[in-house]
This record gives sequence, structure tokens and C-alpha cells, in this order.
Amino acid sequence: MDQEKNEIEQLCINNIRMLAADMVEKAKSGHPGMPMGAAAMAFVLWTRFLRHNPGNPAWPNRDRFVLSAGHGSSLLYTLLYLTGYDLPLEELQQFRQWGSKTPGHPEFGHTPGVEVTTGPLGQGIANAVGMAIAERYLASYFNRPSYDIVDYYTYVMAGDGDLMEGVSHEAASLAGHLQLGRLICLYDDNRISIEGSTNMAFTEDRAGRFAAYQWHVQRVDDGNDTESLAAAIRAAQAEKERPSIILVRTHIGYGSPNKQDCASAHGEPLGAEEMKLTRETLCWPGEPFHVDGQVGDYFRRAVENGKSLEEKWQKLFDSYAASFPDLADLYRQWLKGQPAAGWDKDIPLFPADEKGLATRAASGTVLNAIAAGLPNLIGGSADLAPSTKTIINGAGDFGPDNYSGRNLRFGVREHAMGSILNGMALAGGLIPYGATFLVFSDYMRPPMRMAAMMGLQVIYVFTHDSIGVGEDGPTHQPIEHLTVLRAIPGLTVIRPADANETAEAWRCAIDQVKGPTAMILTRQNLPTLDRQKVAPAEGLSRGAYILYETPGREPDVLLLATGSEVRLAMAAADQLQDSGIAARVVSMPCWELFEAQPEEYRRQVLPPQIKARVAIEAGLTEGWRRYVGDRGRIIGIDHFGASAPAGILFKEFGFTVENVVVNAMQTLDITPCD
Amino acid sequence: MDQEKNEIEQLCINNIRMLAADMVEKAKSGHPGMPMGAAAMAFVLWTRFLRHNPGNPAWPNRDRFVLSAGHGSSLLYTLLYLTGYDLPLEELQQFRQWGSKTPGHPEFGHTPGVEVTTGPLGQGIANAVGMAIAERYLASYFNRPSYDIVDYYTYVMAGDGDLMEGVSHEAASLAGHLQLGRLICLYDDNRISIEGSTNMAFTEDRAGRFAAYQWHVQRVDDGNDTESLAAAIRAAQAEKERPSIILVRTHIGYGSPNKQDCASAHGEPLGAEEMKLTRETLCWPGEPFHVDGQVGDYFRRAVENGKSLEEKWQKLFDSYAASFPDLADLYRQWLKGQPAAGWDKDIPLFPADEKGLATRAASGTVLNAIAAGLPNLIGGSADLAPSTKTIINGAGDFGPDNYSGRNLRFGVREHAMGSILNGMALAGGLIPYGATFLVFSDYMRPPMRMAAMMGLQVIYVFTHDSIGVGEDGPTHQPIEHLTVLRAIPGLTVIRPADANETAEAWRCAIDQVKGPTAMILTRQNLPTLDRQKVAPAEGLSRGAYILYETPGREPDVLLLATGSEVRLAMAAADQLQDSGIAARVVSMPCWELFEAQPEEYRRQVLPPQIKARVAIEAGLTEGWRRYVGDRGRIIGIDHFGASAPAGILFKEFGFTVENVVVNAMQTLDITPCD
Repeated sequence: MDQEKNEIEQLCINNIRMLAADMVEKAKSGHPGMPMGAAAMAFVLWTRFLRHNPGNPAWPNRDRFVLSAGHGSSLLYTLLYLTGYDLPLEELQQFRQWGSKTPGHPEFGHTPGVEVTTGPLGQGIANAVGMAIAERYLASYFNRPSYDIVDYYTYVMAGDGDLMEGVSHEAASLAGHLQLGRLICLYDDNRISIEGSTNMAFTEDRAGRFAAYQWHVQRVDDGNDTESLAAAIRAAQAEKERPSIILVRTHIGYGSPNKQDCASAHGEPLGAEEMKLTRETLCWPGEPFHVDGQVGDYFRRAVENGKSLEEKWQKLFDSYAASFPDLADLYRQWLKGQPAAGWDKDIPLFPADEKGLATRAASGTVLNAIAAGLPNLIGGSADLAPSTKTIINGAGDFGPDNYSGRNLRFGVREHAMGSILNGMALAGGLIPYGATFLVFSDYMRPPMRMAAMMGLQVIYVFTHDSIGVGEDGPTHQPIEHLTVLRAIPGLTVIRPADANETAEAWRCAIDQVKGPTAMILTRQNLPTLDRQKVAPAEGLSRGAYILYETPGREPDVLLLATGSEVRLAMAAADQLQDSGIAARVVSMPCWELFEAQPEEYRRQVLPPQIKARVAIEAGLTEGWRRYVGDRGRIIGIDHFGASAPAGILFKEFGFTVENVVVNAMQTLDITPCD
Repeated sequence: MDQEKNEIEQLCINNIRMLAADMVEKAKSGHPGMPMGAAAMAFVLWTRFLRHNPGNPAWPNRDRFVLSAGHGSSLLYTLLYLTGYDLPLEELQQFRQWGSKTPGHPEFGHTPGVEVTTGPLGQGIANAVGMAIAERYLASYFNRPSYDIVDYYTYVMAGDGDLMEGVSHEAASLAGHLQLGRLICLYDDNRISIEGSTNMAFTEDRAGRFAAYQWHVQRVDDGNDTESLAAAIRAAQAEKERPSIILVRTHIGYGSPNKQDCASAHGEPLGAEEMKLTRETLCWPGEPFHVDGQVGDYFRRAVENGKSLEEKWQKLFDSYAASFPDLADLYRQWLKGQPAAGWDKDIPLFPADEKGLATRAASGTVLNAIAAGLPNLIGGSADLAPSTKTIINGAGDFGPDNYSGRNLRFGVREHAMGSILNGMALAGGLIPYGATFLVFSDYMRPPMRMAAMMGLQVIYVFTHDSIGVGEDGPTHQPIEHLTVLRAIPGLTVIRPADANETAEAWRCAIDQVKGPTAMILTRQNLPTLDRQKVAPAEGLSRGAYILYETPGREPDVLLLATGSEVRLAMAAADQLQDSGIAARVVSMPCWELFEAQPEEYRRQVLPPQIKARVAIEAGLTEGWRRYVGDRGRIIGIDHFGASAPAGILFKEFGFTVENVVVNAMQTLDITPCD
């Protein structure tokens, strides 16, 4: 490499280091070490390989860059600023401050060019796997000979912490299995974590582990050697059938004479004195936030390059659109993130049926009914497809032999599944879904929280939703899970009461393009309500609705229920009626949708003057107090379940018509007769 | 091997198979395939290697057996029955029925000989790692030359699902690092999961992966070859410095002519016809639950063997007790599961201090104060020890060079940490603790649920408990986490308000020997309350207590708060008092402890006639309705946080004295003045 080029590269790399360190110093908090150590690899990737357009972060075929080690956000912001995204230097100076575009960890939707919210470790790797899966599916669906409309790479930068987290194992194993050759991981192997040297806890053979996952593995021993880095990335690109990991030996806090290779460089400012010494070491000017003129020019070439890259792609796309107008239209429509008009025309109407069917079964029927009209609906289960009824029939399995398959086989990997779904949603164009038993939603809580925070359309199908699981016992019986899912801000949780409410739940989930939806479904059969006798299932879209009430009378008592317990409320209403008590049954499948209704509607469904109320749900009583008020009663289960046939459990734990009736009478201050 | 031995072994193995299949068949639900496939390895392990005493499942130095693939419970019950535990054949016939000793998944504390509740996949491997860690620590603490009082092996049987789960990666990587040579994993490599062949999703090189984790790896190609199995287990025992995994190629549903090697053998009864054919294939008598006389005799040798094993050990222990009486006493005391009298004598009293300190810092001080008196208190953090203040100073790191170290370096592996803590608690004698940021409790929810279900004394130290985290932003700020921890039945959640409440929280956690406790601590400083002016911190033990009230008056309004928000309630009470309003401040650090108080006490703290109430907590409002009633008000946060200095966030999100005062006045129907 010639001398001049070497010098400007060094300037660029040091400028990244110093900007990132300045940001942390000014904010008086943050993580300077990672950006300083990883600056060279970031520089090489962003200036020589990454195909992106700073002028249009939404260019659909851009390469994706995921900073899994999200605490290194100042590195990402520095790169975005330098390469000309709409992120001025002033924003770097407002790092971690109220209202700034530069929060402590990268936040999707908040800062132009940030592809994904990261910070909770390990998930970024799985998000990247999701983006790479999306690329293969979209490419397979849309590309035609000479028209590689979709052919982006997904790059992920990950640290020791990411690799220690179990989700990295799950996602990497699956990525190797799926032969995601366009996924490239740069592993920032700095051997320092918060507690100190990784020798304290993390001595596995990382290269061997990824080789075992069927990845292409390379090492770069000097993380500041730009040519070696470039060669490795080139080789990774050349490898078509395996995802690549490059183990890059770096030094945390590189350039800081006293903190380099120390845990103290990880998560706190270097301090004024050490900043001064670092400037000296890196021969850097004294004032903070200095941007070298040459460096600025060098990086800003990305603006022109990006424009030209997108223009070239646009030209290709225009030509493609001429040859394949329908496909091109579809592509545009998918990217809009709105389902095509009429997508729901095949949703079936389930006839009234006392025997009925499990809502998981109804869900499977609905999924298959809508699948043809929504070819961008793609998903699968964590090895529970037959139980969760989430196979799209005839759509094939997604895999190296068939990237147009729509059934994803996640394996028993819930955490990776959740994070991969996020990556797929972030990639654009797809509506991803994932399924497991409700009790195992605990395994994937971290990515569900992120989906909600990012406002991603991801659909969770959680079946086996209560003690109705029966014989599998308490380890498999959700008790607290409705409560803890409802607790995630921005997650819509729907527990339909019968087959037609299940159809409506799918309608809501598909229409809910700005956030995740969890569908909570039974293992056991539920009667399909006779909608001639009760209100239409469309009421579900308002979260809660008057399903039935004693005709011609103001209700004496309100019976609130969700899912499998609605049938108890219905039967109890009948019995109460026989005793001369007017009952109103409110089906309440979704609290979040109900809370979003106008107050007038809410007061109409739950009239404030009616204080006699009973809620019935086979889960924690927690939370229902707000709907039943001080005088109301709640039939729930505040302890773990047991192993026995479901019918016995419901009875033993008080989920009987009799118990609802007794509680209704008590809330009316009536002593039930024997 | 001689013919006769071979024949009786085959009989034994087939008897296991048929009993397990009969159980599932009679229950009309369950998992016959795994027991049928793994019967031979279970037989070899249980009859030739496992040192246990069916007459005393609590013999402390027994080998531990963990069935990580808990759905194969009928295998375990069959082994327990056959080897003479207190589990009669009638219980096998009541498999999965209400009130039986044979629930769908093994439940610790419910069935004699079941070491751990399993079912949620992957965790069993990590539980076993915890048991093996406990063994090393106890051995290191108690053993003396010629006195290997503690030297048990931990065996774990795991399936494909276990190995797919991320927690298996985390735990195995750590086990290799820690060189847990007495941990032996039998991997039931049957290549079938629920969705079908593991080729659909799980094609990694499992042997290579465990080699990368620094494990000793062997293969047994024929899982029915008892001699090869025995040789492999012997070799695993001989390997002292690495944990061992034996990849045993088995066939799910072995013996079933039409279902062997099929997913259909996994999770449902074989069916009457196939049962008949299986009997024919295995040359087995027609009646269900048949136990061959020779088989019974063969297995029941375990009763005598076990007795003699324990007697031999007891003799050794008696001699040890003569030489090391203090150590022997201590060992007995640890195993009792009760802290030694006077353990809490060094808990410090923190002086009143307006500046105060973070409750995480107070926790660190308390931990170190009690550590000397509780040498069986051992734990660590998921790479956040400096932040969570959970290092026991001078106690050394637990590791291959020093198994007497008390500081566990879990690495960034929260899920494994939680499951390992469970294993350590199950091993007996230890009080394990683990720490991370509260927001990352999501990563370890599955094992926390299991700790609660098993009633294990495990202590979680969760710091950085709210938007008080500040600049790290929404990914690191818990919002919903108090709600979702309180939702786990049997988990005690304590959020102390100052340093002295933190000390009391530790007291509760150590005294709470029958279940897990989560301590919720601040990152930021909190004033240390002047206990001359407010009630003593001992009130924490009742869950909620009257911290302060306007002297000499019945309160007009109740202010309920936890943790960092208690200071707001205190300041608001002052201001209200200035306006002539009598306020009572109730510090409410632990709902579970409060709910366990007599009603009289609860009514005394929260008098039902006082309807004007305000609750303040920097978390979801969810759940507080039950304490503030219909008329009360809740100051909480029902959305994700933001990245900015903590002080700004509290202000922006309404956690101010002024807002508490305004809400108090509104609940009293007073319009606050401008």
C-alpha cells in the first residue's frame, strides 16, 4: 500500500477513535473502548465494502450493518456522521442527552442509518441472521436472470459478550444450517469484558465453535491492519455457501496509553488526563470533536458513491419493472409495509358448533386461508409446528435447497426465533411470524421487548395457553404469561374466545403494521359461538365488546372473560338469568385494543355505575382489578398448575360455571342458595 | 460378555421400554419414544455406575442424575420404581393423573429421587453444571487428605432439543472453562425432534462444538451396545480435567416396528395396535405393566448396594468427624439448609445521610459484611460484578486453580447463570446468588420460574432498577420488570428504599430458605433515611410498613412507594403537611411479604376507610390498583424510557415531588393552587 494512502487511512481511523472518545467524554458516560479498538475494521468495511446511500437510508437493496455490540454506539454515530447521513456533528456533541439523535444505544427509527436497536447482547447476531434470511427469501421471490434486484450483504459487528450469550449459539447454528453465505460477522476479539480479561470466563475455542456451526472462519491477527481486514472481507464475500466469521484481534481502548487492553476502557469516559495522553499518542489535535479536512473529504465520498449505487440499482429495477411489471409492483407494495387490498377475503367464517375446535386449530386454518393472498407472510415454529398449527401447507421449507420456502424450521431455539423475526421485519417487505407454547414465551422475552420498542410488525402465535395444557404439568402450563406479555409496552396481546374471534385476531395482527402482536391460543377445543345469538366476532377489533346480555334489561352484573373462559361466562349468564339476574358477558380478548378505544365506547361496554363485576381468566388475577373495581371479583389462578387431564384441573382450580355464578351473586351481595 | 448376562440385560432394558410405553399408553398422553430409545444407556448408567441409595434419596454424597429431556419422565419413574425408591408400581399406573407421584414432567420435591424439575429444554444441562460446581466447592471446602467426603458425579441425560437451546451453549462453555471433570453428559442422539428429522434444523457438528468448549468428547455408535456404553462412561470418569459428553446414537421409539425413528413416537402414545406389535418385536408378554421377575431382582440390588454405599460413606464421615469435628458440624449445618445462628450479627447500620448511597452499593457492603459468617454463600454476576457490587472481597474466584473461590464469573450468560444457581441450590448446602441488571432478568426468566416452582433458595441481585439508569437508554431501563417478576408465583421481590432497608432485604433473602428472592436495587444514590425520624427498617420484613405520618392526626391520604420513589413520597408528605393535609407514607418494598401478613396488620397499614391514596413507583402502573383502589392514583411509567441523565428522565416522566402532591390533592378532590 502506498504511503499516502496509508496516512489518510490512519487519519480516518484515528478520527473515528477520537470522535467516539470525545462523545463519551462530553456525555460523561458511555463506552469509548470498543469504538477505539474496532475503528480500523469499521473503517475498512464502511469505506471499501458497505454498499449504502447516506442520502437515502431506506434504499431497499443497501447492505445491512448491525452493531450487535450496541454499547459501541458512538462508533456507529461517528460513521453515520462522517459518511454523510443526516446526523450533524452537533448531534454527536449531544450524545446521550435528552432529545438528541444519539442515544446511549442505537435506536432504530430514531437515527437515520441505524438499522436496528441493539444493546442487550447477542441479539444483534440473530437480527442479522434474520436480515440474511429475508434477503434470501426476497431474492428467491423477486430475482430473475440478469436481475438481481435483491442481493445485499448483511454485516454484523459483535463482541465477546455477544458470543457468550446463548442466542448467538442458536442463531449461528441455524445460519450455518441455512447456508447464509451473504452473512458476514466481524468479531471484535478484544478479550476484555466488564469484569476483566475474558480469560476469567470465556476460554472456548471460538473458531472451532463456528466451524462446528458450519461457518467459514478466518482470523485477522492484527485488527489495525487494513489490508488484512480487506482481504478477509473479500474472502468472506467470495464464500457463497457458508456464513463467515472473521475473528479480528483488536485492542479495547486502542490509543489510550494507560487504558488500552483494560476493562476500565469499556464503559466509562477515559477522563481528561487520559484523553490528553491519548491525543498525544495518536498525534491528534487538542480540541474535542476535531474533524480532519482530508478525513471529511475521504468519508464523504460515500454520499456520491451511494447515490450512484442506488441510481445504478434503480436503473436495473426500472428495466426489471418493464420486463416483470407485476413482480415489480408486488415488490413495491411489500416494501410499503401494508397488506394488499383484499388480503383478507378468504378468511373463513366458522359455523356455530358446540363441540367446536381449539383456537390453535382455527388459527392454522386462518393462516392457510390468508397465506395465498399474503405471499410475504413467512414464519415458523421453534420445533412445535405440528402442535402450534403454523405450517403453511404446500409452501415448502425455507432452506438451502429452497429459499422460496415459507416455512421456517427454527429448531428448539425460541430466543433466536424472536430475534430473527425482528431482523426479518427490519429487512423490509415481510410479515414474519413465529410460534411456540405460551409458557416458552419466557425464552424469547428479550427480543419481544425489542420488537415492541422498535414498533416492528412481528406476529407471535402462542398456543397451549393455560392449565388447559393438562397432563404436561406445571412446567408447561402458563399461569403468569398473559400478565407478563401485557406488561410489555406496545405489544398487542389477543386471546380469542372461539374460532371466529381467532380469525379476527389474525386480521388485527396483519393490520397492526406498527408493532408486534401475540396471539394466545388454546390447546383444547372451544365451542364456536353461534353468532346469530351473540354479537359478531368483529367486536374483537375494539379489544372488548358486549358479547351477550339478558335481553331487554339493564345488566345487574358484568361478566368479563377472555379465551377459553368466555364459555364459562356465557353458561353462568344463562344460569343467572334463570335466577332472575340480568348478566352481561363482555368478551375481552385484547386489553391494549380496548384501552385505545374512545372513553365513550369503554364506558358503554363497562358502565361505571355497574359495580357488580366478575372477571374470569385462567391466569393470574393481577391486573384485572382495574376492570372489576374495588367491589368486583376475579376468578384466576395465582399459583403453579399441576399434571392431570385439563378438565380436572379447571374444576379443581375453580374454573366452573358454578363458581362464576357464586361469585356473581356475591358481588351482588346475594347469598347463593345451596 | 456371557450369554446369560446379555439376556438379563436385554430383559431389563426391554422392561424399561415397555413400562415407560405402558405408562404413556394408559395415561393417553406422554412421550414414549425417548425412554424406549435411551433405555439401554439409562440401564447401564443406573446399574453399573450411579452411586445412589434408593432407601435414602437425601444421602448427600449420592451421584446426581438429571434428566434434562424431562419429557422422558416415564423413563425416570421406571428407573426409580425398578431400583426400589418409594414409588410403587401403582404410581406408574397413575402417570400424569391428579394427585399422583408421577406428573408429566419430573418435579423436584414431589417424587422421591427426582433431583430437579425439568421439561423446559436446555436448563437441565445447566442445572447439572450447577451441581458439579457445588460439588467442587464443597469438596474443596470440606475434603481433607484421605477424606473425600464430597466426590459425587453429576450425570445428565440430554436430547437434541437441549443442545439446540442457547442455555446449553452458555452452560457448556462455562463448564469447559471451569474444567468440571466430574460432569458427564449422555447425549441421546436420536436425530428426531417434534417437527421431524433434526436434519431440518440441526446439522451442526455437535462433537466439534463440545470439543471447542473444551469438553472430552466420545461417540457410541450403537446406543444399545451396553459394553460400549459402559466403556465410554468409564473413560468419562477417568477424564479428570474436562467435562465429558458421550454422543450416543439411539433410535427414538426403539422396538416399535412402525414408529421407531419417527417423530410420531415423540409425544403421543403408540396406540393399542402399535403397542401390540412392539410387544411382539421385543418378545414381551401381553399384559401392561409387566415386570419380569429376574428384572425386578436385578434392579433391586440397588437397594442393598445403595445402603452399603451410604454406610461406607457414613463410616468415612464418622471418622472424618472425629478428626475434624468443626468441619463435620459445619457440613451438617450447611446441609440443614438453615443459616447458622448469629449469621447476621455483622450487618451494618447505615447512618442517616442526605446524600446517601445507591442501594446496590449498600448491598455490596452488606454482602461483604455477612460473607464471613456465611461461608456457604457463593455467587457472582453475568459479567457485571463491578456494577452490581457483588464481589465478595478477598474470597477469590471460583475456577480450576481454586475451587474454593466464592466469586463465580458467569460471563455474559444470564440464562445459564439462573439455571446454574438452581443446580447449586439443589445440590444442597449452598446459598447461591447471581447478579445482573434488572432489565436483563428477562434473559433468565425461565430458570427463575423453575426456582420458584421448586422452592429453591436462590438470591437474585438485580441492579439498575429503573429509568434511573439514565444515559444507557430504553434498552437498559427496566419498565415492566417489577410487574413481571412479581408475577412469578413464589418469587419474593424486594425493592428497598435506602441502605438500611437493603440490609433488611438481605436478611429476608437469607432467612427465606424455601424460595427465591429478587432484590431490586438502584444504580443512583438514595438518601439514607434518618431512622430517628422514621420507623425502623425492620418493618421491611412485613413487606410494607408505616414509614412516617403526620404526627397526632389520622392520615388524610396514603402515599405508597417503593425503592427510589420513597424519597418522593417523604418530600411530598412534608409539603402536604405544610398545606394542612395529613399524609402517611407507606414504604412497600415487598408485596409478597405484605400479602403474607395477617389481615389485621394489612388493614392497619392501609386502613380501608382511607380511600385517598397515591402509589409512586418508577415502573408500570399495573398491579397497584389493588392497593390504591378505585379512587386512588398511580404515578408510574407505562412506556419505554429514553437516553438522558437520570435526573432529567425522572422529571420528564412525572416522578417529582410536585406531581405527587398534585395527585394527592386530586385524590382528595382538592384542586391544587397554581
